[in-house]
Amino acid sequence: MQRYFIKQAKIFNNQITMSSEDSYHINKVMRMKIGDQIIIIVDERITYLAKILMLNPITRVEIIKEIENNNELPINVTIAHGLIRREKMEDVIEKLTELGTYAYYPVIMKRSSVKYFEERFDKRIERFERIVKEASEQSRRLKLMNVSLPIKFNELLTIKKDFDYALFAYEDEEINSNNFKTIMQKKPSSLLIVIGPEGGYDLVEVQQLIDWGFIPISLGPRILRTEVAPLYLVSAISYEIELGEKNDKS
Amino acid sequence: MQRYFIKQAKIFNNQITMSSEDSYHINKVMRMKIGDQIIIIVDERITYLAKILMLNPITRVEIIKEIENNNELPINVTIAHGLIRREKMEDVIEKLTELGTYAYYPVIMKRSSVKYFEERFDKRIERFERIVKEASEQSRRLKLMNVSLPIKFNELLTIKKDFDYALFAYEDEEINSNNFKTIMQKKPSSLLIVIGPEGGYDLVEVQQLIDWGFIPISLGPRILRTEVAPLYLVSAISYEIELGEKNDKS
Repeated sequence: MQRYFIKQAKIFNNQITMSSEDSYHINKVMRMKIGDQIIIIVDERITYLAKILMLNPITRVEIIKEIENNNELPINVTIAHGLIRREKMEDVIEKLTELGTYAYYPVIMKRSSVKYFEERFDKRIERFERIVKEASEQSRRLKLMNVSLPIKFNELLTIKKDFDYALFAYEDEEINSNNFKTIMQKKPSSLLIVIGPEGGYDLVEVQQLIDWGFIPISLGPRILRTEVAPLYLVSAISYEIELGEKNDKS
Repeated sequence: MQRYFIKQAKIFNNQITMSSEDSYHINKVMRMKIGDQIIIIVDERITYLAKILMLNPITRVEIIKEIENNNELPINVTIAHGLIRREKMEDVIEKLTELGTYAYYPVIMKRSSVKYFEERFDKRIERFERIVKEASEQSRRLKLMNVSLPIKFNELLTIKKDFDYALFAYEDEEINSNNFKTIMQKKPSSLLIVIGPEGGYDLVEVQQLIDWGFIPISLGPRILRTEVAPLYLVSAISYEIELGEKNDKS
C-alpha cells in the first residue's frame, strides 16, 4: 500500500489534508479513488491506515486505525563519506536509505575529486531529501535518513563521541588486524563508519583517524569503489542483525 | 598497481604484446614509462608482475615473476535477475563484479518492465563485458564475471541442477520460514539466487520456483528495489565467509 510522510500538526479531527505534492501523486500518479486506502506515517513514529475522503484539487484522508510497522534497522548506522560527485551521491543516498541507514554525512577530504560549494549544496539538500522520502516510502521505512550538509574532516573527528564505535574502511591490510565482525559481535547500538573518497584517504587523515581512536576495518580482499563500500557495510550489518538467529552449535 | 587481463596465447618468449586498447590505456590514461611495472592476469588464472619494454604505438611487456593473488569470493554466487533497463543493468553488473559475483543471468519474466530484443542485446553484451573487465581490474579480481544473454524462465528452472542450492528473494513473509543465514551455515560451494524484476514475480512464476525446489528467502524487513537486492546478497555472502572468523563463545 502506498505510504506518505506527514507531520502531526497536519491532523485535525482525525483528518489530514495532504500536501499539494502528495495530492498530485495520489491523483495523477497512483490514480486512486475516493474510499481507497493509504498508509500515513506521522512524525516518523506512528503509522496509520487512512482512507481517501476527497481527491481534488487537494486530497483529504481520514484515519482508520493505527498499525504496527517497525521496519527500522535496530542500530544507528551513520555513514561519513568522502565527498563524491552529485549523481553518485544521489545514487548512494537512495540505496543507503533503502538499506536502513540512519544518517549520511558527506565529508570534505583532501583527495575528494570534487570541490564543495556551499551555495550549490543548499539546493541539493532539497533534492536529496526528496530522494530519501521516496526511497523511504518504497522501502517501507518509518524514519527518514538524515542527510547532512558536507562537514569538515575536523568535525568528523569530534562527532565520534556520539557513537558506541567509530570505524573506517581501509584497504591497507597491514594495519587491519581489527575485524568488522568482531565489532558486530559486541552488539553496538550506534556505529559511525567512515569511507574515503574516490582518491582514497590522505595519509595525514589516516593518522588522524587512528589518533582519535577510529578503528580500521577491511571489507574483504577485493577493492570496492567508494560508492559500493557503504552499500556493502549496511547490507552486512542488516544480514548480521536482522536475518534471524543462526543455528549456532554452542 | 594497474592490472590487465590477457590470454595465454598472447605470451611469446616471456613477452606480451598488449592489445591496442590496453596500449592506449597504458600510454594515454596511465601515462606510464618504459620500465614501469604492471600486473598481467592470464586466462583469469595466473597473475604475473611484468615490466614495460616498449610503449608506442603498441605496448610490449616482459614477465618478471608469477605473483600470488587470489581475491576471488570462495563460492560460486550466480545471480539470476529479472530483466531490467539497460542503464540499471550496467550499474548492477559493475557493482556485482566488484563484489565478487561469479555469473549474472538476466531472466525474461512476466512482469519485466522491459522487452527483450535479441539483436539489440548482442551489441550490449560487448559493452557489459567491457564494464566487467574494468570493474575486475579495479577491484583486483582474477576472474571475469560471466554475463549471459537473457534466458527464458524455463531455462532458469533447468540450470538449478548445477548448483548446491537455488534460492529466490521473496518479500512475502508468510512463505518465508526459510532463512538465508541457515543456508549460509551449510557452507554451500555454489548458490543460484533469483531476484524478481521491478514489477515483482508473477504468481505463476513463484509457484514454478517452489515446485522446482527453489527456496524462498527474505532480505529483511525493508523492501529493496530489484537493483539493490543483488548487492545486498553478495555483500552479505562476502561478510559471512570472507571477513574472518567470529569469536563465537562456543
